[in-house]
Amino acid sequence: MKPIKDIISEKPWFGWLLFLASALIVFLLGLLASSIIERRSEAKYAYKQPANLGKFESDNSLWGKFYPREYETFLQTSDTTFFSKYEGNGQIDMLARDPKMVILWAGYSFSKDYFQSRGHYYAITDIRNTLRTGAPMTADAGPQPGTCWTCKSPDVPRIMNNIGPESFYHSTWAALGPEIKNPIGCADCHNPEDMTLTITRPALKEAFERQDKDVMKSTHQEMRTLVCAQCHVEYYFKGDGKYLTFPWDNGKTVEDIEKYYDSYQFSDWVHSISRTPMIKAQHPDYELFSLGIHSQRGLACADCHMPYVSEGGVKYTSHHLQSPLNSVSTTCAVCHRQSEEELRKNVYDRQDKIQELRDMLEETLVKAHYEAKAAWDANASEEMMKPVLQLIREAQWRWDFATASHGGSFHAPLEVARILANGIDKSQQARVELSGILATLKAGNVTYPDISTKEKAQEAIGLKMAALRNEKQEFKSTILPLWDAKSK
Amino acid sequence: MKPIKDIISEKPWFGWLLFLASALIVFLLGLLASSIIERRSEAKYAYKQPANLGKFESDNSLWGKFYPREYETFLQTSDTTFFSKYEGNGQIDMLARDPKMVILWAGYSFSKDYFQSRGHYYAITDIRNTLRTGAPMTADAGPQPGTCWTCKSPDVPRIMNNIGPESFYHSTWAALGPEIKNPIGCADCHNPEDMTLTITRPALKEAFERQDKDVMKSTHQEMRTLVCAQCHVEYYFKGDGKYLTFPWDNGKTVEDIEKYYDSYQFSDWVHSISRTPMIKAQHPDYELFSLGIHSQRGLACADCHMPYVSEGGVKYTSHHLQSPLNSVSTTCAVCHRQSEEELRKNVYDRQDKIQELRDMLEETLVKAHYEAKAAWDANASEEMMKPVLQLIREAQWRWDFATASHGGSFHAPLEVARILANGIDKSQQARVELSGILATLKAGNVTYPDISTKEKAQEAIGLKMAALRNEKQEFKSTILPLWDAKSK
Repeated sequence: MKPIKDIISEKPWFGWLLFLASALIVFLLGLLASSIIERRSEAKYAYKQPANLGKFESDNSLWGKFYPREYETFLQTSDTTFFSKYEGNGQIDMLARDPKMVILWAGYSFSKDYFQSRGHYYAITDIRNTLRTGAPMTADAGPQPGTCWTCKSPDVPRIMNNIGPESFYHSTWAALGPEIKNPIGCADCHNPEDMTLTITRPALKEAFERQDKDVMKSTHQEMRTLVCAQCHVEYYFKGDGKYLTFPWDNGKTVEDIEKYYDSYQFSDWVHSISRTPMIKAQHPDYELFSLGIHSQRGLACADCHMPYVSEGGVKYTSHHLQSPLNSVSTTCAVCHRQSEEELRKNVYDRQDKIQELRDMLEETLVKAHYEAKAAWDANASEEMMKPVLQLIREAQWRWDFATASHGGSFHAPLEVARILANGIDKSQQARVELSGILATLKAGNVTYPDISTKEKAQEAIGLKMAALRNEKQEFKSTILPLWDAKSK
Repeated sequence: MKPIKDIISEKPWFGWLLFLASALIVFLLGLLASSIIERRSEAKYAYKQPANLGKFESDNSLWGKFYPREYETFLQTSDTTFFSKYEGNGQIDMLARDPKMVILWAGYSFSKDYFQSRGHYYAITDIRNTLRTGAPMTADAGPQPGTCWTCKSPDVPRIMNNIGPESFYHSTWAALGPEIKNPIGCADCHNPEDMTLTITRPALKEAFERQDKDVMKSTHQEMRTLVCAQCHVEYYFKGDGKYLTFPWDNGKTVEDIEKYYDSYQFSDWVHSISRTPMIKAQHPDYELFSLGIHSQRGLACADCHMPYVSEGGVKYTSHHLQSPLNSVSTTCAVCHRQSEEELRKNVYDRQDKIQELRDMLEETLVKAHYEAKAAWDANASEEMMKPVLQLIREAQWRWDFATASHGGSFHAPLEVARILANGIDKSQQARVELSGILATLKAGNVTYPDISTKEKAQEAIGLKMAALRNEKQEFKSTILPLWDAKSK
C-alpha cells in the first residue's frame, strides 16, 4: 500500500476529504461533551440546596420552588383517574360497595361515611368533608379530638412545637381547625436544612423508645419506609387525653397487638347491635408489609410507591405516591421480567382470593351480631354472652386488621389469609355457641334486616343520615370559611 | 528500546529463556485442548444411545448400564436421612404425629396406617407393607383392586399391554402382585428407543382426550411436569371396574373437582362416626402446583425436584427426586440470590401458617363428626341431617385436598390458605346447625373421646389394630415370598 502522503500528492482532493472528516468528528465530539456538561449542570441545579426554608415551613409550594420535580409529582396525587376506572367520581364509596360494613361498625362513626382514601393532596379536604368528623359549630364542640389532625398536615409539627403534643391531642378537632391548612407534604418527611428524611411525629419515636430503640439511627433505606410508618400503622387514642399511641409493645402481629389491647381492656366502642366491646383496627400497613416477601427482601415503601424516574440529566424520586399498579413499568418491572399484564394479573389473583375470604368473614360477622342481639332479646344472661362477645370481638378485630390495611392482600397475602381464616373460625365459633343459646332460650328464628344497600343498612342501625348531612353542610358553609380566613 | 535480535546477540541466555517460555505456553495449551477433548468424549459416552432395551424393559438396573449417572441418583431415592432429621426411623408416622386424622378417616383404610411417603425406590416395599392393602391370602381376595398398582412400577405398562387397562384395574391387587417387582423407575417416564419423555399411563392421556387435547403434543418443558402428573394428581376409581380416572372434566380447582364428584353423587366411603358420604382427596400435587407462582413463571416439576448437576464434562438431570430444600444450592439458588438459610426460612414460614389453618380445620371437623353422631343418637331425622352432612363432606374434602397434596403449602400457599379457610367456614357452619339441632332435641352435652394418641384414636373408632397387624404379618411371611419367587 502507498503511504498516505504519496496518495495526497497524487490526488489533492483526498487530503481535503481527510481534513473535513476530521473536522466533522471533532465537531460531534464537541457536541457530546457539551451535552454531558449540560446534563451535569442540570443535575447540579436540580439538587441545589434550599437557602431559606424555615424550620417548620409547611407551605408545600415554597419547597416546590427548590424541588420543582418532586413538587410537581406531589401535585399529581390529586389525580384520581386510577380510581375513576372503577367508580365514576374518583372517590369510591366503600359502604355503598359493601353495605355489610355498615352493620359491622354499628355504633361507630365509620358506619356513617367511609370512602376509599384519595391521594395526600386531598388530606385536608377529605377530613373536613367526612361525616366522621361531624359538624362542630364551636371550637369546644366534638365529636373528634385534635389527635385526628396528626397525620393530615405539615402544619402539625409547628403546632405541636408550640403547645406540646399532649395539648395538641387533648384539644378538640374543631379548635385546631383554623391553624391547619396544608395537606400532607414536604415537611412531614424532610428536614428543611439538608432534605434528609426525618421523623416529625412523636408516636413512632415513642413506640421505638419503649422498645429501647432510636428511630433516628435508622439507615436511609429504613427511613424510606419509616417516614411512611409515622402514619400508615395501627394506632389508638390512649386514655382521656386521646394520646396517639402505637400498640406495638408486645410485637406487631395481629395477635401481639390484640394482647396489648386486651391487657388494657381497651375498646374503641360498644357495638350497638351485639353489645360487644370492639376494637377498631386502623390501617396496619407497615405492620403487614413487614411480614411480606418484598419487605423481607429489603424493599422500602418508596421503592414501589415512589419509584425513581429520569428527566434529562436528573434522576429523582417521584412524589406521586400511588398504587404501583398504576406505574408497573417503573415499579414491578425494575425487578420482574414479566409483562405488565401478567404482573397485574398476579396481583389481582391475590386480591381476588383475599376478597373471597373477606366476604365470607363479613357474612358470618353480620349474622353473629344479629344472633347476639336475638340472644339478648331472649333474655340471655351476661354470663352466657361473655365468651360469645369475646369471640365476636376477636373475629372482627381480625377482619378489620386484614381489610383496613391498604394493600395488605398484596403486601402479605398469606398472612392476611391466615388472619381472615382465624377470624372466620372465631366468628363461626361464636355462632355455634349462639345457636345453642338461642335454642335453649327458645328464641325462635333470628331476623336479619335487609342490608342490600348502604341506605338500607344505615336505616337498619338507626342512623339519621339526612340530619347528619344537613348538619355537615351547615358546618361546611359557615365554619370552614372562618377557618380559611383565619389560616391566611 | 533495542530490537530483540540485538539483545539476543549480546546475551544469548535471553534467547533460551524466550524459547523455554514459548515451549511451556504451548505445552499448557496442549493440556487445555486435551481436557476439552476429553470432556467432549466423556459427554459423548454419557449420552450414547442404548442399543438393546426392550419396549417394556422394567429392570431399572439394565437402563442403569447405559445411564449410570441417572441410575445412581435414582438409587439415592432410597436415602431417608432428610426425614430422619425429624423422626428416628426415616419414616414419619403421620397418624401418630396427628391422631385427629384417624377420626377424620374413620371407616376408611387411611385410619389404619398412614406414613409419609418415602422415595420412589420404596414404592413396592411400602405398598406391600401398608395395612391399607390388607392381607389377601389368595389371588382373588381383597380389599384393594389392581388399580392401586398403577403408579407403583414400570412393570405396569407391560401388564396393561398384555391384558388391557380395564382388566388391569378390575383385577384384585393380590392377583397382580406376583407380576410386579420393580419400583417406579426409568420406563415410567422414558421411551427406551430415544430416551424422550413419554406418557405411559392411560389416565392422563384419557383426561386430556376428554378435553380434546393430545398430551403427546406437549413441549419438552411441559413433559418435565406431565410425566409426574401421570401419578401426582387427584384421581378416583370410577365405577365397579375401578377404572382409574382423573376428575378434571370441569377444571382442576378444588371446587371444579368437587362439582365433578357431586354430579356423579360419588363418595369414597361413608364416615363411620357422622355417617357422611365422604370424598377422599388423593394427592392433587399437579393441580395445586399449576395454581402457584413457580408454575405460572414456567417452571416444571423437574426444575426443582430433579435439578441439573455437572460431573466432569457431563451435565445431567439428577434423578434423586426429593424435596428441593434438601438441595437448595442446585434448586432455589439457581434463580434466588438469598442465602440458603433465608430461602429455607421463607418456605418454613409458609408451611407454619398453613399448618396453623390445617390444625384449626381438623379441630372443627373432629368436633363436627362427633356432634353429628350425637344428633343421630338423639334421633335426628335424615332431613335435619342432610344439609349438615353436605357441609361436613365439603369441609373435609377441602381439608383433604389441601393437606394430601405434597408440598401444596409451598407450591400454592395462598390457594391452599383459601381452600382451608373455606373448609373452616363450612365445618363451623355445620356445627352452627348441629348446635341448634342438638339443643332442639335436648341431646345434652356431646362427648368427645380421648384422641391424644394414635392408639387411643384408633381404639375410639373401633379398629382392632393387633389383629390387623397379625394378619399383615402372616401375609408378609407367607404370600410375599411366593410373589418374589414367581416374579423371578
